[in-house]
Amino acid sequence: MPSDINLITPVVLAGGKGTRLWPLSRNSRPKQFLPLVGELSLFQQTLQRVADRSLYGPAVVVTNEDYRFMVAEQAERIGVDLQTILLEPVARNTAAAIAAAASLTAQNGPAQLVHVLPSDHQIDLDDSYFEAVRSAAEAAHDGRLVTFGITPTEPATGFGYIDAPDAGKSAVAIKRFVEKPDRDTAISMLERGDYYWNSGMFLFQADTFLEECGKLAPDVRQAAEAAVAAATPDLGFLRLDADSFSEAPDISVDYAVFEKTDRAAMVRLDVPWSDLGAWDAVWKEGRRRDSDGNSIHGRTYLPGTKNSLVHSERDLVVVNGLDDVAVIASEDAVYVGRLSQTQNVGDVVKHLKQDPATEALTQSHRTSYRPWGGYTLIDMGERFQVKRLFVKPGKRLSLQKHHHRSEHWVVVRGTAEVTIDEEIKIVAENESVYLPRGAVHRLANPGKILLELIEVQTGPYLGEDDIIRIEDEFGRD
Amino acid sequence: MPSDINLITPVVLAGGKGTRLWPLSRNSRPKQFLPLVGELSLFQQTLQRVADRSLYGPAVVVTNEDYRFMVAEQAERIGVDLQTILLEPVARNTAAAIAAAASLTAQNGPAQLVHVLPSDHQIDLDDSYFEAVRSAAEAAHDGRLVTFGITPTEPATGFGYIDAPDAGKSAVAIKRFVEKPDRDTAISMLERGDYYWNSGMFLFQADTFLEECGKLAPDVRQAAEAAVAAATPDLGFLRLDADSFSEAPDISVDYAVFEKTDRAAMVRLDVPWSDLGAWDAVWKEGRRRDSDGNSIHGRTYLPGTKNSLVHSERDLVVVNGLDDVAVIASEDAVYVGRLSQTQNVGDVVKHLKQDPATEALTQSHRTSYRPWGGYTLIDMGERFQVKRLFVKPGKRLSLQKHHHRSEHWVVVRGTAEVTIDEEIKIVAENESVYLPRGAVHRLANPGKILLELIEVQTGPYLGEDDIIRIEDEFGRD
Repeated sequence: MPSDINLITPVVLAGGKGTRLWPLSRNSRPKQFLPLVGELSLFQQTLQRVADRSLYGPAVVVTNEDYRFMVAEQAERIGVDLQTILLEPVARNTAAAIAAAASLTAQNGPAQLVHVLPSDHQIDLDDSYFEAVRSAAEAAHDGRLVTFGITPTEPATGFGYIDAPDAGKSAVAIKRFVEKPDRDTAISMLERGDYYWNSGMFLFQADTFLEECGKLAPDVRQAAEAAVAAATPDLGFLRLDADSFSEAPDISVDYAVFEKTDRAAMVRLDVPWSDLGAWDAVWKEGRRRDSDGNSIHGRTYLPGTKNSLVHSERDLVVVNGLDDVAVIASEDAVYVGRLSQTQNVGDVVKHLKQDPATEALTQSHRTSYRPWGGYTLIDMGERFQVKRLFVKPGKRLSLQKHHHRSEHWVVVRGTAEVTIDEEIKIVAENESVYLPRGAVHRLANPGKILLELIEVQTGPYLGEDDIIRIEDEFGRD
Repeated sequence: MPSDINLITPVVLAGGKGTRLWPLSRNSRPKQFLPLVGELSLFQQTLQRVADRSLYGPAVVVTNEDYRFMVAEQAERIGVDLQTILLEPVARNTAAAIAAAASLTAQNGPAQLVHVLPSDHQIDLDDSYFEAVRSAAEAAHDGRLVTFGITPTEPATGFGYIDAPDAGKSAVAIKRFVEKPDRDTAISMLERGDYYWNSGMFLFQADTFLEECGKLAPDVRQAAEAAVAAATPDLGFLRLDADSFSEAPDISVDYAVFEKTDRAAMVRLDVPWSDLGAWDAVWKEGRRRDSDGNSIHGRTYLPGTKNSLVHSERDLVVVNGLDDVAVIASEDAVYVGRLSQTQNVGDVVKHLKQDPATEALTQSHRTSYRPWGGYTLIDMGERFQVKRLFVKPGKRLSLQKHHHRSEHWVVVRGTAEVTIDEEIKIVAENESVYLPRGAVHRLANPGKILLELIEVQTGPYLGEDDIIRIEDEFGRD
């Protein structure tokens, strides 16, 4: 689908698996898909940032198998059309992901402008932001590989820096890139000025990037182009060829291209920006901090508590007379620690991953999202578990059977169309249906409102892998 | 049922409603019924303290309507026979409760010895404890009203004190009672010695107590005796006459009798004792404090955390690098605060009670106990809720119907006998049954193992008060 050559193609990188915002961020639903600041997820906010159709064409989203339905669903929920959802068969860092997206975009015209955006950052938009994007686009037209540098507001040690004297509204040459500094170096850079945080956003012409990538990291370009050439479209997704893409080295685009090319330039961004890298960064971004300095989400009561972040997904959380704490209560885990020391949540997650008793709490949530809707695990015991399923209007699950379990469905909202072996029946609210072990069955929502049902599973083995899919419109095995 | 006149009759006071251990303690299940230290509840530990059948006869438990099934159930679970479960129709403080118990006990012989025990204290038993009880019994035989004084270990301001010079293994005269002191007074009493914490335990002959009560608080004696005389037995409970008992003044037994009588005496107790009055006291009693000084219950991970109490009923709780905190995660609420400042949990509960959105969290738990078993609320939504019911072998629920809801039952363990209107059927594991709105129904467990089932309720109104009981073997309306 060719897009207007004068419009920028946004390339949104949405394959990352952050763990530092545990217990909310988990492998199955990482940071970029969570509504951390406001109602929308960071990914959705990123899509909105490139929604101006006088400046941008539809976006290419680079993600992986696990997140593909979440990407489609979250884009759909805010009414944003995507150009392509490009699936990485293996994770190969940013160089290969961007090269693949550039190669794909170049099919619409080699000089096509590409704006690369991480999907898990928070940016406050204003006119100056879009002025900077337009400046970057001009420089890109002149053959530059443009990065965006954020004017630093504190001596952060968690980011790389860009040394760019004379940086202004127009793109300027880059003197050098600085790796994540220690505290003293960060302080002196902040004092001297001329140093900017490397935002991970880039803007360039597809051909410029591919040319430089071919010169400076030929393995990356070759693997990415081959993976795009042999990519297979699959129900709205575009799957990169696994054999080719696996050949790409696992390196960042900074290291592979930007730190080496003499065509790099920087545009300065003077907007509030955060990578929301840990809970204290989420606190800083909290728009609704109260007069006691607390950032609050969900049901809370905080007598005498100050300068704290309290986030509850479900239960009432009371924090009584504390200062500088982070209390995060998800559906199945509670984290309590100093807010100013939330950088080490990653170590906690590493520990939990190693313990079989807690590993699942780093992988998935009680609520899982599927292309047809999703489910919440609400109870489990010996030989049974109970889920609440929700199916979107017009959607249906795969035709499937189970070897080891029977299922009882009680419809509590909407109307279900249930296939059992040869029979198809309508099950209305307050009606139930029984699916014996081994029966070939399918659940669909033929109605106009959300279908909700309670599923009681009984049997000796209740794992998600006891699903034999006979037919699936979402292309799952 | 007359008991051996040489045995002491334990009178266990189990009607109190503490809130300071919220979110665990709630109106429907207060402190004494919770397993706070070890596997057994404080009430059960109290019963075990009087289980020596060479010293004690079966206990009289004084409680109220709301807790009667919990009392019976918890006693049964540890195999302890009770003499009587005496139900107070209204709360009238300790004077009337003890007078009623004494009056009841006197029916077995006026000189019957009575040992009054609060049910929500923690005591470490050793030989010296039972020596003290025997000393107290001797003094009681000589016509004394004996209290037990605990040798203080810190200048506590939360207890009354007893000034008793020369206190030893034998009962001694009491010089005076001291109200809860301020900190300075408590320190000076601790330094001077001769002062003991008032334990709330008493030992006396029934007739001695009634005599003194008749002299010093005649309203109390009269109301209590009349309430016993007109008491009505009801399915294993003895219900005090409401009209008579309501006449009793609302005063403590200390104020009504012990502080005024010249027959009071004290026996010293040198055993570890705690009233578990707040979370810090629970921490102090924690037998399993680890080398970092943490008292732990349930699923927890506490890297770098010290001197803290972490109690989880269900979810994993991570406390990262904190000192002196209490983190209590119940099934539906989380409390976080300084461990050393848990005395003000009562204020938190007061606030939550006033807010309709949180009031229920001070009243009941997600899991409710009933004489036949109980249920856990596992999910709720608009027009539906889901419970997991458990029914003990041989028990059955009331014959009932609902005006506003239908119910689906899926048996996940054991076997159910279900009555629906005129029909009775057996529902086995992995079978389900539907109870339409208005149907007269009854659930029973005819088997030898626990019956568990998932109940899905649907309808416009799902309150517990939409139960019309047609017949109930537990005597409930």
